[in-house]
Amino acid sequence: MAEKISTRAIVCREPLGDGGGWRMETVRLRDIEDDELLVRIVASGICHTDVTFGSLPVGTPFTHYPSIKGHEGSGYVERVGPKVTVAQPGDPVLLSYAFCEKCAICEAGHPAHCVDSTPINFLGYDAFYSDDNTTDTPDLRGGFFSQSSFANWTIAKQHSVVNVKGTVNDEDLKVLAPLGCGIQTGSASVANLSRPGPNDSVLVLGLGGVGLSAIMGAKLQGCTTIIGVDRIDSRLRVARELGATHTINTSNMGDLDELVNQVHGLTGGYGASVTIEATGAMPLIRKGLALTRFAGKYVQVGVAPFGEEMSFEVFPNMTSGRHIIGTVEGDAVAVEFVPKMVKWFKEGRFPVDKLVRFYKAEEWQTAVHDMEQGDTVKAVILW
Amino acid sequence: MAEKISTRAIVCREPLGDGGGWRMETVRLRDIEDDELLVRIVASGICHTDVTFGSLPVGTPFTHYPSIKGHEGSGYVERVGPKVTVAQPGDPVLLSYAFCEKCAICEAGHPAHCVDSTPINFLGYDAFYSDDNTTDTPDLRGGFFSQSSFANWTIAKQHSVVNVKGTVNDEDLKVLAPLGCGIQTGSASVANLSRPGPNDSVLVLGLGGVGLSAIMGAKLQGCTTIIGVDRIDSRLRVARELGATHTINTSNMGDLDELVNQVHGLTGGYGASVTIEATGAMPLIRKGLALTRFAGKYVQVGVAPFGEEMSFEVFPNMTSGRHIIGTVEGDAVAVEFVPKMVKWFKEGRFPVDKLVRFYKAEEWQTAVHDMEQGDTVKAVILW
Repeated sequence: MAEKISTRAIVCREPLGDGGGWRMETVRLRDIEDDELLVRIVASGICHTDVTFGSLPVGTPFTHYPSIKGHEGSGYVERVGPKVTVAQPGDPVLLSYAFCEKCAICEAGHPAHCVDSTPINFLGYDAFYSDDNTTDTPDLRGGFFSQSSFANWTIAKQHSVVNVKGTVNDEDLKVLAPLGCGIQTGSASVANLSRPGPNDSVLVLGLGGVGLSAIMGAKLQGCTTIIGVDRIDSRLRVARELGATHTINTSNMGDLDELVNQVHGLTGGYGASVTIEATGAMPLIRKGLALTRFAGKYVQVGVAPFGEEMSFEVFPNMTSGRHIIGTVEGDAVAVEFVPKMVKWFKEGRFPVDKLVRFYKAEEWQTAVHDMEQGDTVKAVILW
Repeated sequence: MAEKISTRAIVCREPLGDGGGWRMETVRLRDIEDDELLVRIVASGICHTDVTFGSLPVGTPFTHYPSIKGHEGSGYVERVGPKVTVAQPGDPVLLSYAFCEKCAICEAGHPAHCVDSTPINFLGYDAFYSDDNTTDTPDLRGGFFSQSSFANWTIAKQHSVVNVKGTVNDEDLKVLAPLGCGIQTGSASVANLSRPGPNDSVLVLGLGGVGLSAIMGAKLQGCTTIIGVDRIDSRLRVARELGATHTINTSNMGDLDELVNQVHGLTGGYGASVTIEATGAMPLIRKGLALTRFAGKYVQVGVAPFGEEMSFEVFPNMTSGRHIIGTVEGDAVAVEFVPKMVKWFKEGRFPVDKLVRFYKAEEWQTAVHDMEQGDTVKAVILW
């Protein structure tokens, strides 16, 4: 057997907390399997999901320690297993999410809602050896979203891989690293799932990477009324740069009925044709239907706390004709949607660069801090 | 001013109850307005909505006494107002539902979810004179769904009118009277709104006129798994004749978890791709999401009791990717969808005749009784 490849990686030994639960370490990779690719990671976006699932207490379902997170990776293929058809060594790739490829939901074209999505994406597979592991058995969990891109070299399953050969250069690959998750989630929720038209109004609640991408999606759809809502003025400003026609800062609102009033005021008294809920905050979720017009679509994108419920009266909601839609990844099929985003970016219609701030991989703690503070919309670490 | 036209009509003087709240009377019509048509009604379906809104206590919102119900009418145009373009005297027409024509929801192509739908459809407009009314002011409310077709002659607004000239004969007009509401609602919920494909499974809860029409819609979509659920064997039998591949009788089920188990058993363990809830019964509604697969659509068509709520946990429903959709009339635009149904009927692919039982107008009490007992799926009275 060949010498194992060594790589730097951010290893989640314990929940992140305030201290040293996550550490940059040197680890080694196991050999790739038939449907896997060895990828040299160039850049990886940091998403709240990485932090959340690397901060949950030991023993929480769908968490694993020690493990390597990271699920918005870009890089170059170094080696491929014999069953891999998606890319060849040397190809630039963007990594997206995992799915089983065989359940009825995957087969029906909705792999983001694969019945095994949660265990596959969050539990991954053993792929790395700790530096002091002298056995033949990997002891570090990789395969977070089939990629674990918080590592300079990693092992990706081919279903997570989007080949972008011939469409991107080296610099693009850094900017576009986060396309495969947060940016896809936001923009596809509009441009793939809910598909408003020019006469429709789009309301986006929460202007992090996902919400701002939803703003870009609404702009691409040609919507003439695009309303962004957040508590941070700098994000409202970015939203306007990306195409929001109106922004609302809720930080000083005593009551979210004021938000409902303002949105109705901006939409002829009807509410938004499409509401993208990208906060997961229950007070906003509870106003979701009131913010959405008759025959409109309320799209739940933000991760709500476990156990929290949404409810509505059946009869008036029936007559309203509203659609209440839950979604992951905007129901996008990555191999179809990621190339669209790349094309829009190259045409100047999808300015992901306005969201991204780069950090050296060694500065990952600063990156996480800045993102959590809201100073950085989308932190991307460079390997 | 010309002599007023006299007509027989079923007048709701008081709530239906057991006795004489509704009576066949001779009444007179006012003159038509610019956007109205004088229509000689040939046939009118009876729908639970007629009975419900003619049985509610005096003073209940969106009820009016005295009034004339009926909202599944067919007939021939006798006279048209100067602004009417939809039809000419002599044309055969099917009547459908009312909408304001000017709100953003109507303009966006969703007139069934018009923001003023409830008052417009249920409160109508004064259109008839009682026989003993010697004033110039009509005292009987017409315009139920802009038609009040429980009358041999009536006044319809043109937005409710679908011209079927050249596509139907006199006999067809009797069978097709109910197309404009119940049959449209069921079939359009599948063939217009949720649009499953051949590989999808469709579950229909409740096999009255709406539910059986949903079965026909699923058959038209080419779905290979079509499951009908009811408590009445004769309806399950009709469902199978119309295309249901499986039927389930819930009358002896102690627990609706048994229904969930059976539906999962018939759908590879996933639940239905599309669930059409056509009962309005809360115990079934509460199982609606469990009956529906990931990335599937739960469509609320049945009228639930006022005040009853549906609830779900936000996070798992988000990851499920389900769509929860409320709908009226299957979100169909009648002038587009009714002609499709007529075409399917003439091609032998939409056997509405299997649902319909005719009664003379004078036998309306028997018709209502048979429908309420479940012996008749769709009672149609002939004028």
